[in-house]
Amino acid sequence: MAETYIFGHKNPDTDSITSSLVMANLEHELGNEDAVSCRLGNLNKETQYVLDYFNIDAPKLIDSIEDGSDVILVDHNSPSESVENLENLNILKVVDHHKISLETSYPLFYRAEPVGCSETILYKLYNENNVEISKEIASLMLSAIISDTLLLKSPTTTDDDIKAVEELAKIADVDYESYGLDMLKAGTDLSDFSIDEILSLDAKQVDLKNVKSIINQVNTASIPDVLEMKDELEAGINKIIEDENLDIFILLITDIINSNSQVIVLGKDADLVEKAYGVELKDNTALLKGVVSRKKQVIPILTENA
Amino acid sequence: MAETYIFGHKNPDTDSITSSLVMANLEHELGNEDAVSCRLGNLNKETQYVLDYFNIDAPKLIDSIEDGSDVILVDHNSPSESVENLENLNILKVVDHHKISLETSYPLFYRAEPVGCSETILYKLYNENNVEISKEIASLMLSAIISDTLLLKSPTTTDDDIKAVEELAKIADVDYESYGLDMLKAGTDLSDFSIDEILSLDAKQVDLKNVKSIINQVNTASIPDVLEMKDELEAGINKIIEDENLDIFILLITDIINSNSQVIVLGKDADLVEKAYGVELKDNTALLKGVVSRKKQVIPILTENA
Repeated sequence: MAETYIFGHKNPDTDSITSSLVMANLEHELGNEDAVSCRLGNLNKETQYVLDYFNIDAPKLIDSIEDGSDVILVDHNSPSESVENLENLNILKVVDHHKISLETSYPLFYRAEPVGCSETILYKLYNENNVEISKEIASLMLSAIISDTLLLKSPTTTDDDIKAVEELAKIADVDYESYGLDMLKAGTDLSDFSIDEILSLDAKQVDLKNVKSIINQVNTASIPDVLEMKDELEAGINKIIEDENLDIFILLITDIINSNSQVIVLGKDADLVEKAYGVELKDNTALLKGVVSRKKQVIPILTENA
Repeated sequence: MAETYIFGHKNPDTDSITSSLVMANLEHELGNEDAVSCRLGNLNKETQYVLDYFNIDAPKLIDSIEDGSDVILVDHNSPSESVENLENLNILKVVDHHKISLETSYPLFYRAEPVGCSETILYKLYNENNVEISKEIASLMLSAIISDTLLLKSPTTTDDDIKAVEELAKIADVDYESYGLDMLKAGTDLSDFSIDEILSLDAKQVDLKNVKSIINQVNTASIPDVLEMKDELEAGINKIIEDENLDIFILLITDIINSNSQVIVLGKDADLVEKAYGVELKDNTALLKGVVSRKKQVIPILTENA
């Protein structure tokens, strides 16, 4: 039989990697023996920590898929975040928690819910199909939900995410708070990265009405540690603003312990951040208390004020 | 609290009407007391038969919804088949079995499966949420699945549809084969309709590559009865071809008892049907044996040969 390739988005995070592994397991359990877990990019440090911790192999790295192949998309549905030739592939299923950006010419299995993490939906699918969740699968699911919700503290967290974490922690037999904190911290280690890499790790190009923007987010356990690189970061940001002809570049340095974000803001429309949050930028920076979610607490607020 | 409006597609069929009623019931059971079952058009004769048979009120007829309102879409997702101002509404959920034609700017609950009927998915949702299915709700679900799958004989029928029908017939306490046949026959009564109405009842505008087409389907228990109107139907079709500048108009007269379709084909590209099915049109008509599904057995075959 031909293979069914299962993968998350490009530039994969812990949710995309683990969802691909977990969905492949679920497909096997449901009788699709040809399901293969794949990934469209390198592991980040947080995900590497998860796989090392539980001694689990990474999905297969792929960069292209033959036209006409069967695929299952997890943790994304936008063609821009997927394989190049998505429109020539046969999408069997989608399991995702993002807005809908996909058009198809055929009906398919599509399961999306507005929850914090794709794994929360996969957790439900196991239960709905009466498939037992192994310790290994629970560990992967748990890690992704902790990652996407910043240990259930992000405003994207729903009751379903909390319930899933509590149940999965029992099956995985881990103290999810201490494990989760170590995992998140592992993901904040920037020591191997150049300034340019830091500024592109999780950069999102967004149009805030007519304001051409990049909003970049870096997680940390210590804001002052990141601010030690402030001059170099600003030089890098100014270069990107010039190259990309941006109106504003926002670097969110998110303190995952205390749930705040320090921002570095450059560009001719930098005052948009001051207006939106009622703060004053000093030396291009300010603390946004309680702000951790770009999706819920940054993009909509800036769009409203743009 | 503000209402949540639940509705199926324009020009509603039995699946759209009953899914709106059933989804509203499920929402009530799940605690959303503000869910209101609605419809975007008049009942067809088949659906009227169903509601009369089980003595159930029709959903509320609406033609517009205030911007910003909460809505749930059933049995459709395409904006072209929905309310005019869909992009200004807040879509909470979608339950559907069609291809995906919707883009959103926010995550939502989206549940689609490639099954024969939306009610088959709703049947699963009741079970997944441990909500008991009443006799009335089972009757509505059962009717829609019989309607969409032509008593489980259409090639769109899946194992899930069959299983749902068998379980629902027990709860509804009806002999689904004899009830279903009576229901389908009620839907084939054309006596009240003008030729123009017959030609627009279930007409789908489709581009078969570069061939501009309308494919219209009429169900019947007796093909000869419909062919008695052949001259008037052809005159009506020729007028539509001229008005709409069509390359081909296909009228499928589908025998729901024997699972065949007689076609009347007019327009300069009429030979496309001959080529696609290896038949010869005599006086613009031919019998397509075993063809009952426009979606599965007509549009793809014609597109391939266009």
